[in-house]
Amino acid sequence: MFVAGHQMGVVLDAAPFVRELAVAAYDAGAREVVVVWEDEAVRRLGAERRSERADADFPAWHTDAMNEHALAGDALLVVDAKDPRLLSGLPQDRLSARAAELQRRWRPSSEVIGRLATNWAFVTAATPGWARSVFPGEPDDVATELLWEAILHAVRADLPDPVEAWRSHVADLAARARYLTERRFRALRFVGPGTDLDVGLADGHVWCGGAATAGSGVSFVPNLPTEEVFTAPHRRRVTGHVRGTQPVPIRGEIVEGWELEFKDGRVVAATAQAGEEALLALLATDKGASRLGEVALVAGSSPTRATGVRFEHPVFEENLACHIALGRAYAPTVDGGASMTADELLAHGANTSDEHVDIMCGSPEVTVSGIRSDGGVEPLLVGGQWVW
Amino acid sequence: MFVAGHQMGVVLDAAPFVRELAVAAYDAGAREVVVVWEDEAVRRLGAERRSERADADFPAWHTDAMNEHALAGDALLVVDAKDPRLLSGLPQDRLSARAAELQRRWRPSSEVIGRLATNWAFVTAATPGWARSVFPGEPDDVATELLWEAILHAVRADLPDPVEAWRSHVADLAARARYLTERRFRALRFVGPGTDLDVGLADGHVWCGGAATAGSGVSFVPNLPTEEVFTAPHRRRVTGHVRGTQPVPIRGEIVEGWELEFKDGRVVAATAQAGEEALLALLATDKGASRLGEVALVAGSSPTRATGVRFEHPVFEENLACHIALGRAYAPTVDGGASMTADELLAHGANTSDEHVDIMCGSPEVTVSGIRSDGGVEPLLVGGQWVW
Repeated sequence: MFVAGHQMGVVLDAAPFVRELAVAAYDAGAREVVVVWEDEAVRRLGAERRSERADADFPAWHTDAMNEHALAGDALLVVDAKDPRLLSGLPQDRLSARAAELQRRWRPSSEVIGRLATNWAFVTAATPGWARSVFPGEPDDVATELLWEAILHAVRADLPDPVEAWRSHVADLAARARYLTERRFRALRFVGPGTDLDVGLADGHVWCGGAATAGSGVSFVPNLPTEEVFTAPHRRRVTGHVRGTQPVPIRGEIVEGWELEFKDGRVVAATAQAGEEALLALLATDKGASRLGEVALVAGSSPTRATGVRFEHPVFEENLACHIALGRAYAPTVDGGASMTADELLAHGANTSDEHVDIMCGSPEVTVSGIRSDGGVEPLLVGGQWVW
Repeated sequence: MFVAGHQMGVVLDAAPFVRELAVAAYDAGAREVVVVWEDEAVRRLGAERRSERADADFPAWHTDAMNEHALAGDALLVVDAKDPRLLSGLPQDRLSARAAELQRRWRPSSEVIGRLATNWAFVTAATPGWARSVFPGEPDDVATELLWEAILHAVRADLPDPVEAWRSHVADLAARARYLTERRFRALRFVGPGTDLDVGLADGHVWCGGAATAGSGVSFVPNLPTEEVFTAPHRRRVTGHVRGTQPVPIRGEIVEGWELEFKDGRVVAATAQAGEEALLALLATDKGASRLGEVALVAGSSPTRATGVRFEHPVFEENLACHIALGRAYAPTVDGGASMTADELLAHGANTSDEHVDIMCGSPEVTVSGIRSDGGVEPLLVGGQWVW
C-alpha cells in the first residue's frame, strides 16, 4: 500500500493517524506499507524562496513515486490533511504553472486512477494547520479535536457499525446512479438565484456513485465521505450562467462569490468576490480547464451537512451540494470509457485536462431537472431533496 | 540542496531543525531545497510486519532519490537523528539482508560521495527518540535539550566564532595528514590491553582529514564533528588481534566488548559480549565486509570528548578514539584514487564492500606507532595524545 498526500506527501502532522493506518494495513495483509511525507513549512518556504527557473524542476523521484505505485497496481491511499490557506498571498501565476507541471508529470498515475485500474481512496485527517482555518479562535488541540469529530461524523465512523452503514449507503447511491443512467437524459438543467445552466451530457454517459470496482476486481470506495452520483457532461454542450453556492479552495486561495458564463461548453466570463485571480489562473491552465468534466448530484441531507462545519476542503464541500467540475472527465463515466483512448473519450464529449476542480452550484434554492431528448423536463432535486 | 537521513529520510522529529536549515540554505542561494522524510514508527513497523519476500523490494523512487541528486551534483546534507535502538530485538539476518540490498541500490551515490564528486555533509540533530537512549531517566524535553547542548559543543557551534574555529581546526588536521602522508609508513601498530594489531597501509595511501574539495571545486567539511585523520589500510595486510574500546551501534543493536582476530587482512574470529549476532551479520554481508577500508587516528582531547556524553552514534564515537572501519575504502585515501576504477583501487589494496562501519579501538592505554618500510618504529599517539 502506498500512502501519499494530496499533492505529493502526507503532511508530517498527520503522522499519528498514518501510523494507525499502517498497523491496520498490515493487519489486513499488506505486503508492505510505503509512505511519502511532505512538510508544509518546507513547502511554503519553497514556494516563497525557490528561484523562478526552478519552478518546473521537480526531482524525478518526487513525481515517479506516485506513478511507480499506481502502475504497479498497488493500493493507493491519499491522506489529505493540508492547511487550505498554506499558499495564500503567493503569486498565482507561478503556483499555477508549477501545479500544472506536476499534473503533467502525474499523467500516468492520473490515468490509472481515472480508469480505476487499481483500488485507491482519498481520505482526510485533522491537523492543527487545517483545524485553525476551520475553527479560528480555538486553541490548536481543541480545534483539531473538533475537526476530527466532524470528519468522523461525516464519514459515518461514529456509528455503531460503520462498515454496514457504508454497505447500505453505497447500495443506495448505486441504485440512484442506475436509474439516472437508464433515463438517458440529454442534459441537466440547474435553475436558482443567479443560475440558469444547461449541462449537456456526454454521448453514452454513465452515472457512477458510491463504490467502484478496480481492474484487479477489488471493490472500493474512492472517496470518504461520498454522497454524490456523477457523470460526464458533454464538453461542447454547456450553456448559460451559474453562481457558486459554496467557497472553493483553489491554489491555496478560498474563492468566494464566483459566477461563470458558459457558451458551447466553454467558460466565456468568470468573476469572483474573493480569489478571482486563482479562479482565472485555474481556467487558463490548459484548453480543457475552462470546460466541464463532471456534473454531480448531491441531496441536501447527509452526515457531512449535518456537522454544520465549513470544512474548506473539496472532499467535504463536494458532498454538501450539487456541483460541476472544471477539467477532465472520469473515463468510467462514459460507457466502455475505461478501455477507450483519450481521442475516443473526446469523441464522446468527455473532457480532457490536467485539472479537475469541483465547484459547488447546488443549494435548497436550486432546482435540478433532467431534460429528455424529446425536450421533456423531469425534476430530480427540489428544495435540495430527491423527488424520487 | 537535497536533505536526507542516514538510511533514506530525515526522521520526522527533526522537522524544526530541517526547517531552519532550509531557510539558511535559501539565504545562501540554494536554487531549491528538497527534503525526503521517513517516520521511525513506520520504519519499525515495516521491519516487524512486512512479509519476508518484501524485504528486498524497495520502491525504485525510494532509492533513486539519493542517486538522482548525487549524480546531478546537488549539495547533499544528511541529517542523522535516528534512535540508535530503533530496530532492537528484530531478526538480524533479515535486517542485514535488507540493509545490504539498500547499499547495493545506493552504489551510484556512494560512488559520488566516496569520490567527493559533489559536496556533502553528515550532521546530526537531537530528537526525543535518540535523546532517551543517551539520557535515560530524563523527561523527553530535558533529554533532547541536553543532547542538543552536547551536539552543539561537539561541533564547536557554541564558540563565539564557530566558522573561524572550524577554519583553524581543519587547517590543523590538514597539517597532520600531510605529515603522515610524507612519512609513507608501511603499517600502523596498535598495542594496548587485548590489542596487538598491525594494519598494513595501501600502496600509495594518502592521509586525509578536515575539509575536502569536491569535483565542483567547492571546499566542504564532510562530517560535523570531525577530529580524525584517516587513510586506507591494505586489504590483505592486517594481522593480529584487536579489542573494542567503545560500544558501536550496528543494525540497531549496541555491540559491546567485541574482539576481532585478523589474518592476511581478513577477520578470522569475532566475539562480542553484547550484540555479537549483529557483528557477525555485518561481517557476512559481502566479501569486503570482513576486511578493513579505513584506519583513523584521533587524539584524546576534543570538544566531543569534553562533553563526556556517550552519544551512541557513529559520527561522535568515531571522534572519541582511534578506529578502524570494516568495509569499503574511500577512493581519495589512495593517491589518484578519485579517478581510479574499482579494480585499480583493489590493486592498490584499497578494500571494496557495500558496508563501511567504524569500530573504535583507541584509548589512552593504546599506543599507536608508525612502522617504516625499513622496520623502524615511530610512536605517533601515546597516552591518547599526539607525540608531535
